[in-house]
Amino acid sequence: MTVNRQVVLRERPAGVAQAEHFEIVETSVPDPGPGQILVRNAFLSVEPAMRGWIADVGNYSAPVPVGSVMRSLAAGTVIKSRHPDFAEGDQLSGWFGWQDFACVAADAVVRKIREKDLPLSLSLGVLGINGVTAHLALTKIGAPRRGETVLVSTAAGAVGSAAGQIAKILGCRTVGIAGGVQKVKACLETFGFDAAIDYRVEDLDAAIAAACPEGVDVYYDNTSGRISDAALRQLANNARVIICGTASISSWDEWPSGPRVERHLLVKRALMQGFVIFDHMDEYEASVAQLAEWVRSGTLRYREDILSGIEACPDALAGLYRGENSGKRLIRLPH
Amino acid sequence: MTVNRQVVLRERPAGVAQAEHFEIVETSVPDPGPGQILVRNAFLSVEPAMRGWIADVGNYSAPVPVGSVMRSLAAGTVIKSRHPDFAEGDQLSGWFGWQDFACVAADAVVRKIREKDLPLSLSLGVLGINGVTAHLALTKIGAPRRGETVLVSTAAGAVGSAAGQIAKILGCRTVGIAGGVQKVKACLETFGFDAAIDYRVEDLDAAIAAACPEGVDVYYDNTSGRISDAALRQLANNARVIICGTASISSWDEWPSGPRVERHLLVKRALMQGFVIFDHMDEYEASVAQLAEWVRSGTLRYREDILSGIEACPDALAGLYRGENSGKRLIRLPH
Repeated sequence: MTVNRQVVLRERPAGVAQAEHFEIVETSVPDPGPGQILVRNAFLSVEPAMRGWIADVGNYSAPVPVGSVMRSLAAGTVIKSRHPDFAEGDQLSGWFGWQDFACVAADAVVRKIREKDLPLSLSLGVLGINGVTAHLALTKIGAPRRGETVLVSTAAGAVGSAAGQIAKILGCRTVGIAGGVQKVKACLETFGFDAAIDYRVEDLDAAIAAACPEGVDVYYDNTSGRISDAALRQLANNARVIICGTASISSWDEWPSGPRVERHLLVKRALMQGFVIFDHMDEYEASVAQLAEWVRSGTLRYREDILSGIEACPDALAGLYRGENSGKRLIRLPH
Repeated sequence: MTVNRQVVLRERPAGVAQAEHFEIVETSVPDPGPGQILVRNAFLSVEPAMRGWIADVGNYSAPVPVGSVMRSLAAGTVIKSRHPDFAEGDQLSGWFGWQDFACVAADAVVRKIREKDLPLSLSLGVLGINGVTAHLALTKIGAPRRGETVLVSTAAGAVGSAAGQIAKILGCRTVGIAGGVQKVKACLETFGFDAAIDYRVEDLDAAIAAACPEGVDVYYDNTSGRISDAALRQLANNARVIICGTASISSWDEWPSGPRVERHLLVKRALMQGFVIFDHMDEYEASVAQLAEWVRSGTLRYREDILSGIEACPDALAGLYRGENSGKRLIRLPH
């Protein structure tokens, strides 16, 4: 416990960071100064959004500096505290980075984990920014009404699967889009979508039209690209399109083109709006409380894809973009 | 007064209807049946949106049938009434079509003209769907706050000029985009924009960035195309984009491509929404009352481009798309 292994960004990639863009370094475990806490990480998060956090264009936060520890959410336990609000043994989620130990100020903490009856790892997935994003983006922008049709891309993923299930809880017909037989099966059998479409093999326009005969009232978009192009052609009047991610676009360095959206939005009187969870942190705690209730009652299910050991970090993000995970990807740090 | 000249759609064009797509026919003036009224048109409206009403794709209402009178708003006087709500001499605006006389049921009437102190022609422009569209789309979707920057395309046009002036009345900084020296001059001198950009000669990205140093909070889009592409690159956080028209796109039969919008909307947490006035007719009367007050006080100015005689109709829409009008284009029918 005298060594802190850290995953450092070695070089800024053009597209998605690959294993070779990171390196693992060993430093000593720091001692917290006044107002700081020392957290031992138990789980590190791997998010599609990390692609954006690393990029130096088309970003919504300062890019992770080359040479610094990879920015990430993590969950762990306070092992030393010099801050009055935190005590040794507190379980926290926060911006603790891809490393064994994080010595941070209070503003790095997202929250104290109160759901002691549920696995700690959930605080990074269905009870973390993925679940809260799905919940708040769906309800605030999508505002789905009972009986409406909600279409979700990356529907077997951490955000998409939660969005689909919450839409179902709210009384909507849900249609998921995912890649491959296994993910389509997960959409139908685990996450309860009314229909699921495999974008790798199906004609998207025809499949969406067939699955959404009255049109798409809410499209929860995690992909952009040709999936979105097809979804926009099937919008119902007064549709709402939630822009939550652009996973299908490997790089915005050369800005990609696609079919123009203006005519769809005009003719269908439709709305498209971007959602970034960090604007809504004041609603985070209430959202987690609601999500935890749904998890306990079994109406909100989740899948986790847990890799073991910090050595798994460098390739973990690239693996997400290869689509190899089934469920929320995490790294467990054995102690 | 025994002959009714009508402008009939002869053939459905691929893009914007040209003079040869219409023909003028003479029929007899009909006699109103029970519940009907006979209106003698004084002014016929020419709208960019007519392109969409004629097209059989990307449309928000049933396309004008080939062989029928061109759908249009018009203003005129009731000369015979067999409906209890209307009396001879009433001035009305409504869906009376490009013709001398319209024999219609009550549902064709948009409203009775109450602003007897103002020119009748205004009921088709600044006090008609153009002004009401600008007013309601700007306030409902754009929701501009005092001190924000509002960018408007086709800023010297009937909708754009009203949108810019209303934004100014609401305390915003206003920037107009228009084509050509005369229109830019009208933006600055007649419509009081704080800055105006000539899209034909200026580098749009640089010009918008210079005119909107804090970014664009509200973009009132009447054009789509490269003007919108540049505007989207200059959005401020939490920007609102009103999709009101797509005047720069000559045809959607082959769907045009452009730079993808999703990343802009996500990174800037921005909203884009289509607006069609016909969804908001319950607010029409209140909006006209407000607009008329502003017109009377001189804070809301307008320009009209009035052609004379029904013979001017067939080429009038094509002329709009050639950009030859300065102000709201109307046809006056001399009696």
